[in-house]
Amino acid sequence: MNARIFIGNDRVDAVAADDRGLAYGDGLFETLRIHRGSAPWWDRHWARLSRGAERLRLPLPAPEMVRDQAWAMMAGNEAGVLKLILTRGSGGRGYALPATAVPTWILSTHALPPKVVGDGLSLRWCDTRLSIQPALAGLKHCNRLEQVLARAECGDPAHPGQHADEGLMLDTEQNVIGATAANLFVMVDGQWATPRIDRCGIAGVCRSWVLPELQACETRLTRAQVESAQAVFLCNAVRGILPVARLGESGWALHPQVSALRDRLAAAVPMFAPHNERIANA
Amino acid sequence: MNARIFIGNDRVDAVAADDRGLAYGDGLFETLRIHRGSAPWWDRHWARLSRGAERLRLPLPAPEMVRDQAWAMMAGNEAGVLKLILTRGSGGRGYALPATAVPTWILSTHALPPKVVGDGLSLRWCDTRLSIQPALAGLKHCNRLEQVLARAECGDPAHPGQHADEGLMLDTEQNVIGATAANLFVMVDGQWATPRIDRCGIAGVCRSWVLPELQACETRLTRAQVESAQAVFLCNAVRGILPVARLGESGWALHPQVSALRDRLAAAVPMFAPHNERIANA
Repeated sequence: MNARIFIGNDRVDAVAADDRGLAYGDGLFETLRIHRGSAPWWDRHWARLSRGAERLRLPLPAPEMVRDQAWAMMAGNEAGVLKLILTRGSGGRGYALPATAVPTWILSTHALPPKVVGDGLSLRWCDTRLSIQPALAGLKHCNRLEQVLARAECGDPAHPGQHADEGLMLDTEQNVIGATAANLFVMVDGQWATPRIDRCGIAGVCRSWVLPELQACETRLTRAQVESAQAVFLCNAVRGILPVARLGESGWALHPQVSALRDRLAAAVPMFAPHNERIANA
Repeated sequence: MNARIFIGNDRVDAVAADDRGLAYGDGLFETLRIHRGSAPWWDRHWARLSRGAERLRLPLPAPEMVRDQAWAMMAGNEAGVLKLILTRGSGGRGYALPATAVPTWILSTHALPPKVVGDGLSLRWCDTRLSIQPALAGLKHCNRLEQVLARAECGDPAHPGQHADEGLMLDTEQNVIGATAANLFVMVDGQWATPRIDRCGIAGVCRSWVLPELQACETRLTRAQVESAQAVFLCNAVRGILPVARLGESGWALHPQVSALRDRLAAAVPMFAPHNERIANA
């Protein structure tokens, strides 16, 4: 992993042992797709990070500096992932906010995740529930133990019998919210819908692109509605549109509207074109 | 801050940028009181850490090594706080557990928090709620954004008008759970009670000492029950028994049973004796 670490405006060698990100998950993160040395959705990610920082009262580093450093790290990178972690930095006794917080921020680059093979993702239902917390809902914050536990339920790719590509999570009141690392869209009675994220879940960057494209409604969804949907896909800002082929006993052929949406995304944001997918996963 | 950082059995200079503690709060912590170069409640803390690690499938470092390092750091320390953070270490792509996790653990020493002045703590009700998550309930894990937000509501000691010493938190179903960094006990109809921690909250080390001492029952408590209680105190493993004097419009004189409990704790665990409190806060 290639990483650069900063405290405020200063590049440093390492994260401090008393960083609040480490102590409390007191931070936010973004995971961006790299395409030909740049991050085409940078502005969308930065906007979400800024909104999250405001809600958590996290200090933001200088935007131009973060951007310059990110571009320096992405230079020459044809396809990959850029991760940005922002924490409240060091200090403060216990949970109390430090009087003057200087943010820690970490940029790192990673390989793209493996390409979807076959006709679509194979999903399972996770037993781990998402807790309901409006104060944190929508944010891509660093308190992710629920996702860690849920993802562990999807099993090991080395044991395909028990393995699922992704897991769907319900909240503690049995509403479907999304996958561990992607948002969910389903077609019910010819209308596209996606779970509301006002009580838990993440306001995904790709989700916000898809919503107006499909004139999708944000609603509460039951497990039965998902299982009996006419079409199902996941999306995130690294992998784009991910058709779902299987979920327990349910199965779906690639729906023409999902296929068309994928083409529209590829036209609007070329990094998601199948051609670039092949490059990325070569 | 004096700190030592380890990955498995190796002492290292710094936490890795891709540590899962930093990325996801994927870890646990303990905060122990130091007394005359040792941590008298070490075994209780280690037992809780071990139970938490089992539930989160976190690897544990070698117990003797952690203990030896802790004692080396506490040597000559009359009174203070030892913090132990344990994370799942580096690696794993995204939320998936790494195939072989080597734990990161960090020991650090800190000054004792300020002594309670006057007749007891002044509390307020926090607006931030605790979410209901049985999979994480009881654990002292590193997903603590709710406590960070709640603690920020208690205000700044520099502005005593709006300041409270601690904040009480309810869960999203309006049950009282505890303070941001302490457990809560109340006397209702002559019987001691403390909130159940099966859906959220922390299984405090001092709480587990107090429970049998007071033959307290674990129950669901409403805000009104706390406000109209005959006596109220908080407790934690660093500060012991903390009488509560005020909460909004409610006020309490020091109850003889709270005073007696404090004496019993001081007799059983001398670090909590008033004499040592004075040393600690001199």
